[in-house]
Amino acid sequence: MTSPDSAATDARTVRATIVQASTVFYDTPATLDKAERLLAEAAARYGSQLVVFPEAFVGGYPRGSTFGVTIGNRTSEGREQFRKYHASAINVPGPEVDRLAAMAGKYGVYLVMGVIERDGYTLYCTVLFFDSQGQYLGKHRKTMPTALERIIWGFGDGSTIPVFDTPVGKIGAAICWENRMPLLRTAMYGKGIEIYCAPTADSRSIWQASMTHIALEGGCFVLSANQFCRRKDYPPPPGYTFAGTEEDHSPDSVVCAGGSVIISPTGNVLAGPNYEGEALISADLDLGEIPRAKFDFDVVGHYARPEVLSLVVRDHPTKPVTFTSASVNPGGPQP
Amino acid sequence: MTSPDSAATDARTVRATIVQASTVFYDTPATLDKAERLLAEAAARYGSQLVVFPEAFVGGYPRGSTFGVTIGNRTSEGREQFRKYHASAINVPGPEVDRLAAMAGKYGVYLVMGVIERDGYTLYCTVLFFDSQGQYLGKHRKTMPTALERIIWGFGDGSTIPVFDTPVGKIGAAICWENRMPLLRTAMYGKGIEIYCAPTADSRSIWQASMTHIALEGGCFVLSANQFCRRKDYPPPPGYTFAGTEEDHSPDSVVCAGGSVIISPTGNVLAGPNYEGEALISADLDLGEIPRAKFDFDVVGHYARPEVLSLVVRDHPTKPVTFTSASVNPGGPQP
Amino acid sequence: MTSPDSAATDARTVRATIVQASTVFYDTPATLDKAERLLAEAAARYGSQLVVFPEAFVGGYPRGSTFGVTIGNRTSEGREQFRKYHASAINVPGPEVDRLAAMAGKYGVYLVMGVIERDGYTLYCTVLFFDSQGQYLGKHRKTMPTALERIIWGFGDGSTIPVFDTPVGKIGAAICWENRMPLLRTAMYGKGIEIYCAPTADSRSIWQASMTHIALEGGCFVLSANQFCRRKDYPPPPGYTFAGTEEDHSPDSVVCAGGSVIISPTGNVLAGPNYEGEALISADLDLGEIPRAKFDFDVVGHYARPEVLSLVVRDHPTKPVTFTSASVNPGGPQP
Amino acid sequence: MTSPDSAATDARTVRATIVQASTVFYDTPATLDKAERLLAEAAARYGSQLVVFPEAFVGGYPRGSTFGVTIGNRTSEGREQFRKYHASAINVPGPEVDRLAAMAGKYGVYLVMGVIERDGYTLYCTVLFFDSQGQYLGKHRKTMPTALERIIWGFGDGSTIPVFDTPVGKIGAAICWENRMPLLRTAMYGKGIEIYCAPTADSRSIWQASMTHIALEGGCFVLSANQFCRRKDYPPPPGYTFAGTEEDHSPDSVVCAGGSVIISPTGNVLAGPNYEGEALISADLDLGEIPRAKFDFDVVGHYARPEVLSLVVRDHPTKPVTFTSASVNPGGPQP
Amino acid sequence: MTSPDSAATDARTVRATIVQASTVFYDTPATLDKAERLLAEAAARYGSQLVVFPEAFVGGYPRGSTFGVTIGNRTSEGREQFRKYHASAINVPGPEVDRLAAMAGKYGVYLVMGVIERDGYTLYCTVLFFDSQGQYLGKHRKTMPTALERIIWGFGDGSTIPVFDTPVGKIGAAICWENRMPLLRTAMYGKGIEIYCAPTADSRSIWQASMTHIALEGGCFVLSANQFCRRKDYPPPPGYTFAGTEEDHSPDSVVCAGGSVIISPTGNVLAGPNYEGEALISADLDLGEIPRAKFDFDVVGHYARPEVLSLVVRDHPTKPVTFTSASVNPGGPQP
Amino acid sequence: MTSPDSAATDARTVRATIVQASTVFYDTPATLDKAERLLAEAAARYGSQLVVFPEAFVGGYPRGSTFGVTIGNRTSEGREQFRKYHASAINVPGPEVDRLAAMAGKYGVYLVMGVIERDGYTLYCTVLFFDSQGQYLGKHRKTMPTALERIIWGFGDGSTIPVFDTPVGKIGAAICWENRMPLLRTAMYGKGIEIYCAPTADSRSIWQASMTHIALEGGCFVLSANQFCRRKDYPPPPGYTFAGTEEDHSPDSVVCAGGSVIISPTGNVLAGPNYEGEALISADLDLGEIPRAKFDFDVVGHYARPEVLSLVVRDHPTKPVTFTSASVNPGGPQP
Repeated sequence: MTSPDSAATDARTVRATIVQASTVFYDTPATLDKAERLLAEAAARYGSQLVVFPEAFVGGYPRGSTFGVTIGNRTSEGREQFRKYHASAINVPGPEVDRLAAMAGKYGVYLVMGVIERDGYTLYCTVLFFDSQGQYLGKHRKTMPTALERIIWGFGDGSTIPVFDTPVGKIGAAICWENRMPLLRTAMYGKGIEIYCAPTADSRSIWQASMTHIALEGGCFVLSANQFCRRKDYPPPPGYTFAGTEEDHSPDSVVCAGGSVIISPTGNVLAGPNYEGEALISADLDLGEIPRAKFDFDVVGHYARPEVLSLVVRDHPTKPVTFTSASVNPGGPQP
Repeated sequence: MTSPDSAATDARTVRATIVQASTVFYDTPATLDKAERLLAEAAARYGSQLVVFPEAFVGGYPRGSTFGVTIGNRTSEGREQFRKYHASAINVPGPEVDRLAAMAGKYGVYLVMGVIERDGYTLYCTVLFFDSQGQYLGKHRKTMPTALERIIWGFGDGSTIPVFDTPVGKIGAAICWENRMPLLRTAMYGKGIEIYCAPTADSRSIWQASMTHIALEGGCFVLSANQFCRRKDYPPPPGYTFAGTEEDHSPDSVVCAGGSVIISPTGNVLAGPNYEGEALISADLDLGEIPRAKFDFDVVGHYARPEVLSLVVRDHPTKPVTFTSASVNPGGPQP
Repeated sequence: MTSPDSAATDARTVRATIVQASTVFYDTPATLDKAERLLAEAAARYGSQLVVFPEAFVGGYPRGSTFGVTIGNRTSEGREQFRKYHASAINVPGPEVDRLAAMAGKYGVYLVMGVIERDGYTLYCTVLFFDSQGQYLGKHRKTMPTALERIIWGFGDGSTIPVFDTPVGKIGAAICWENRMPLLRTAMYGKGIEIYCAPTADSRSIWQASMTHIALEGGCFVLSANQFCRRKDYPPPPGYTFAGTEEDHSPDSVVCAGGSVIISPTGNVLAGPNYEGEALISADLDLGEIPRAKFDFDVVGHYARPEVLSLVVRDHPTKPVTFTSASVNPGGPQP
Repeated sequence: MTSPDSAATDARTVRATIVQASTVFYDTPATLDKAERLLAEAAARYGSQLVVFPEAFVGGYPRGSTFGVTIGNRTSEGREQFRKYHASAINVPGPEVDRLAAMAGKYGVYLVMGVIERDGYTLYCTVLFFDSQGQYLGKHRKTMPTALERIIWGFGDGSTIPVFDTPVGKIGAAICWENRMPLLRTAMYGKGIEIYCAPTADSRSIWQASMTHIALEGGCFVLSANQFCRRKDYPPPPGYTFAGTEEDHSPDSVVCAGGSVIISPTGNVLAGPNYEGEALISADLDLGEIPRAKFDFDVVGHYARPEVLSLVVRDHPTKPVTFTSASVNPGGPQP
Repeated sequence: MTSPDSAATDARTVRATIVQASTVFYDTPATLDKAERLLAEAAARYGSQLVVFPEAFVGGYPRGSTFGVTIGNRTSEGREQFRKYHASAINVPGPEVDRLAAMAGKYGVYLVMGVIERDGYTLYCTVLFFDSQGQYLGKHRKTMPTALERIIWGFGDGSTIPVFDTPVGKIGAAICWENRMPLLRTAMYGKGIEIYCAPTADSRSIWQASMTHIALEGGCFVLSANQFCRRKDYPPPPGYTFAGTEEDHSPDSVVCAGGSVIISPTGNVLAGPNYEGEALISADLDLGEIPRAKFDFDVVGHYARPEVLSLVVRDHPTKPVTFTSASVNPGGPQP
Repeated sequence: MTSPDSAATDARTVRATIVQASTVFYDTPATLDKAERLLAEAAARYGSQLVVFPEAFVGGYPRGSTFGVTIGNRTSEGREQFRKYHASAINVPGPEVDRLAAMAGKYGVYLVMGVIERDGYTLYCTVLFFDSQGQYLGKHRKTMPTALERIIWGFGDGSTIPVFDTPVGKIGAAICWENRMPLLRTAMYGKGIEIYCAPTADSRSIWQASMTHIALEGGCFVLSANQFCRRKDYPPPPGYTFAGTEEDHSPDSVVCAGGSVIISPTGNVLAGPNYEGEALISADLDLGEIPRAKFDFDVVGHYARPEVLSLVVRDHPTKPVTFTSASVNPGGPQP
């Protein structure tokens, strides 16, 4: 550990790529095809070891939809819209997960993929993790959806806040405004996160402040991946309508402007933010930056005050119904 | 599962038929013959994929009997009545189960059949499940008999509350007033029930309120099957006497008025209730209604609060005597 | 308790009144004035001992609002709308709670009042309980808001699911679609609820089925109180706009049709449902009906199977931050 | 331990009295008055140290009633009958329990009393235990009612099968046909029972065989107390009707013939059986008979084969709803 | 099984005979000859389908012997006495077993025979079962010898507590005071025993109470067979001496008084008890009595509380030495 | 509070000023004079209701000092430097605190002042709070000094993390890199902080990201005050030397560049950052922005998951020595 060689080892560098691209909306097989093309390009052109996709890349982020809901009312059109959205989601595990795992193995990359997960009839905004050997590692379910998302997605519990210790670093993810939750971030800091993935749907410039802050606070690399969507990436009306917006209705009008970015543990922007279009955004992550940054500030180490401030994370699964016989698990495996 | 086609698949429709008919009392072979005629008709006339029979169709519901019991007393006539009732029940597995399985296979329907099960000298009010390939799938034993039923039927345990994942949907059953048990229903919701069968002996109009409520609560189709019995469906006195009733004693007087009904997950009555006579009651179940309804309310998904309220289901078998050698099982197999 | 007289005592009768009326929207003092007028009338005209108001009577149910929210977007108008709604809510305890307590004492009634509770900057849909001596007894916070309500109201925890043992019976409340939650209902059954209040905002006829079912399931009286609102009960545009509705925009058009109802433990409708207008709906509750009904079905007594199905209620308060010194409680007292 | 004196100590003798008498039906205060008169007489005339009353002495055994129940039907008269019966039952703890405790203390006797216990709206057939200092010791709830009793009484769980170690010996109770349950008896043998109380409602001569067998099997004294009731001990019709009996309807006709008996561990009948009328039946219990009998046969000692046959008693309370906060216990304390 | 005829079948009747007779002591071939004579008579005179012999009929019950044992001492005479007793016992399987099987086949009866089994140098008090086709079915070894029996007999394990399902009913056996063991009896109840054989050596009148109790408890027929022995049935002194008795020493003095009895499931004595002499005691067993009795009380069915009280039977063979190669089974076949 | 007027009240506006200025180093009285001048100006020119000073304004931030410390060594010069620094600090309470309180009262402002607090021979980096009536409210001690600060300042405990509920809003403070501590921030969020003061010594541009993030995360106004220091603000060498810097040594060279800023709850920069020189930086804080922002994200309200993630704050004083007599409290009053 202390030889010159080990120092070199500690200072290993990881090539990472963020995918900034749009879902093929309501067409999950085509979305998976697109994911594979992007993954192949990241591997071939950039030699990436780690590829991070945006929130809800598989299944889609139904921006501008209302699902027919107002306070105290629903519509049958909104219910049918949900049925279609539900049908586009994927089971975990399931055939789409198998395909994603195979992709990761084929291109030899660690893959972090935002999906809409179907568990019975409730959906979750989930991030899946795969290793470069083609194995599914586990998942993170968004613990708290934002605003109208709360009517289409359920709430993850404490059992799916993983950090995976991999050869490319300790990897985890928080989704969109979860990144604003200080206790959730601290839970991941407590697990030693080094490569903090932040798949998101927030393309406002103010988002960059939070990404920089988290890199400093956590002493970790932050990789924020957002979709870049134009109107034409969604089905045409009446299959899809944008509610409550007075924006440009032309097919090329930008619906989600991206802003994907890679930031170092000392707060340096390594790549991005990109607000131009679909793109692969890559950077070399010098893992030696982590101890350099933690020397200043180690949020769960020398800079913590555990005798004053302590966080309790209830990370056992919570289910409305549990069966004492072990074999019944209708909701699929937990990581 | 997630292609546009799969959305169409999710919206698949199942033709279901409820049988509203009477047992041939004290004549189990004749009852099975009648079951077969009804099944054949459901398949031929309605093209049914799923057929649900009432509670205790095989073995019979001895309405109006007292079995000679008062508080602190019994009669030898009552004991003899029980002996005959016991003799009309069926073993599970056993030859009658084999015949029912063969019927389901012959007509290519999923079959849900209420029976009186004999396990040694205790009887259970049981529902049997068969697939359209002619296989016996398993059984549900009523967990809590109502009122005087407690002197003729035993109590099922947690090991026989199955929900079967079939091509026509996830099927289970609760019998008569079991349907009033919120924790039992929730156990089935937790297993993902989609087609909730409610074989019953309750023909009061108030029963409809519970059926509608369950459809809404569970976000599932509810199929409630009741017998329609006239006095003449029972043996003449003194072989059979109705106690404590001042009803019409004519052979055509109605003893059980049916009320069988099919309700959608959003609470719409699709067929029935029928209070007129023996009948086959059919409806098309659009399974797409389930996600539409669950969008509003998913009792074990987005509308649950598992960290506050959690149900534990002890679903291992409970037996007064267990033998450590595996092969001794005098009471027949468990599903 | 056990003399022949006590049998008469058990059969005591309680006069109860449900208020079906509209909030004075965005004017909390005027709403409290209206509450007092209605309470006075219930006491004077009907001699009521128990008066139940609808969900969100104080603070209002902002039907038809969207608060400017679509998936992935918000508007500043929506945020301002929330600020006003937040300003109309009440702290618990606080001066409005004191006024309500004084009203209950003045008219000598047990009072169950739906309010919007302000706890810092999060709101809760809450029911307050007061005794006829003018004491505040405690509160129930809705544990799970429905659909768009999830963006304006927080989620109650297990510490506010009270049942109060009073001289007019054991009283508790579940709000609107909480009534569809079987485990929540069972928690209240487990506390022995006898007078089950169901303040609601659901005026569909299908709501009646659930109310009847709950009365049967719980063996309790069900008192469902809903608002009756016309368009003119809300401020005129642009102060208030109804989104996504193609309804009659005349001032007298009905926005919420009521349907308040009182049902006995055996499922008999004692008063209502009223879909005509603002009204006081009264009935005599013969508490002797409870043992008569429980003889048939006691959901947490003789009809339970606790060794198979058991519900765990985590009824300790859950807070994101707790301070080990006892006196710091920024969110107000818990019952 | 081994001195001659200790042998004398071991051979201590206890004076025990069984009360064979009738409830004052539907009049619990009068029944308690009668209990006190009988207790006073047992203490004064016989110097009894231990007095055992029959099953359901307080609350009553409604022999010959049907509560209007037939298979599939109920009557409103039956429900009202239950309401009255429910009103005659007692809460545990409660004022009647306090009175019984005071009686035991006043007359300085260990008291074993059969009661009907009211827990919410479910009743239990319960035996209460009191010490000679006037303390309530605990209770046994009948675990399995017989026949029609199952519609009026709930089922006790494993937490109320106590054996109390007292200066007059180790005392417990099994009620009526519970005495036929070999596993329940063995649970009490396993707790070291020495004075086995068998309050009952079975006056058939065949009952004596079971009492003798239990004395031999358990190596314990058996004290079986039954009521002696005449028709006139019940209210006159229509307040009370005997169903399904062709017996003598005169006021003096015997409804329950007693048969109370005291048997030694070696199977000797020490007093009774008495089939003549109300009576106090007394005997001296030479506790030295217990080791003499166990020398022959010690059912849970030298004559057990625990490596082959072992009984598991789940003696934790089972409740349909549990609250994680300790203080909520609507059902009263558990022994 | 379920036709009206099957009800008749369920009510089938079995003719059973108990043999009350003495071993020809120390002469096993003569004892077998005597057995055959008695069997022939039972078949010819009574048309018996089932014949039950007493405990230790083959090999003998050495009543009155001490085998020279006092606390802390033995004698060489006692050792020689054991050698002779050991020589009179039989191997299982072995030629005497073959002869017994042939007898059963010849007379077409189900045969239940008490024997002394020799397994190496340890003896067991065993009951053998044969079918009417002349097949040996299996054996029961007494699990717990009484008092001094413990110096001449070993202890059976849980692998030899069989219940055989035969055309004449489900048959098993418990020997002498094993019948006092509630867990052993429950093991047999758990296997569904219908014809409960109780070969014994206890001729006290109190034995009848236990037999009646077991019939009621188990809901089964009880057939208790005892030897009737006079002094002259034993060899004359000094070949055989009775220790510690001051009885009549005349050759005709009764050493064991019989008391064999047949009891129905409802506790009715069908034949016996006979205390007069050697005899064949016969009765018709109406198997319909079993469901009639179980209607009242089904010890392992509707009257069990398996979730509270559960018996575990370790019914695998236990041997002091086991060999990992599968084929070693020195003790003969297991049922 | 709930009238339409109260909505206006909720939208009240507060004028706030940040002081960006330098300590008069090693001259505490002169520093207090300077503080008063700045305070007077803020009140007079801007009408400020709230004035916030930088970290260590009184006592000074000894930037560039090493206090003679290297790993394993100290120097006597460093010790003397600490003696002088210790002498410039102030006791709390004490005469300087009284003077500051008087100033606040004189100018009618809420005052938040960074000081170096002397507690015996340990110093703390502390913020003092005063109300506009001239009352000292309490203090916050920096809980975790950064890097070399750890050799001159002690660590604050959990008892000095106050949030004061004042007419200008709920006010608290975190000092410099404490602002990076997510659990400390959450403790203040849990107390309802609305005006979050961040006195600092960090003038890097990256600091702005954290300030913006905190405003969003906490839904609060953030007021970050830093000193603006030139070389000449420190004593000349050798009285003061800057270690390890190759910077411009001219008197006007900037040692600390300020960057003070005011940010709204939605992340808008209201004033600053100023990197130009000493300045008063002012803005109007529209408190209505808080509910508008919390509608989106309420970190301890609707966006928390307390059942998964909960922070425990041990906010009792921790002292190395406590005296059991109650009156000992050497550290001054606690909030």
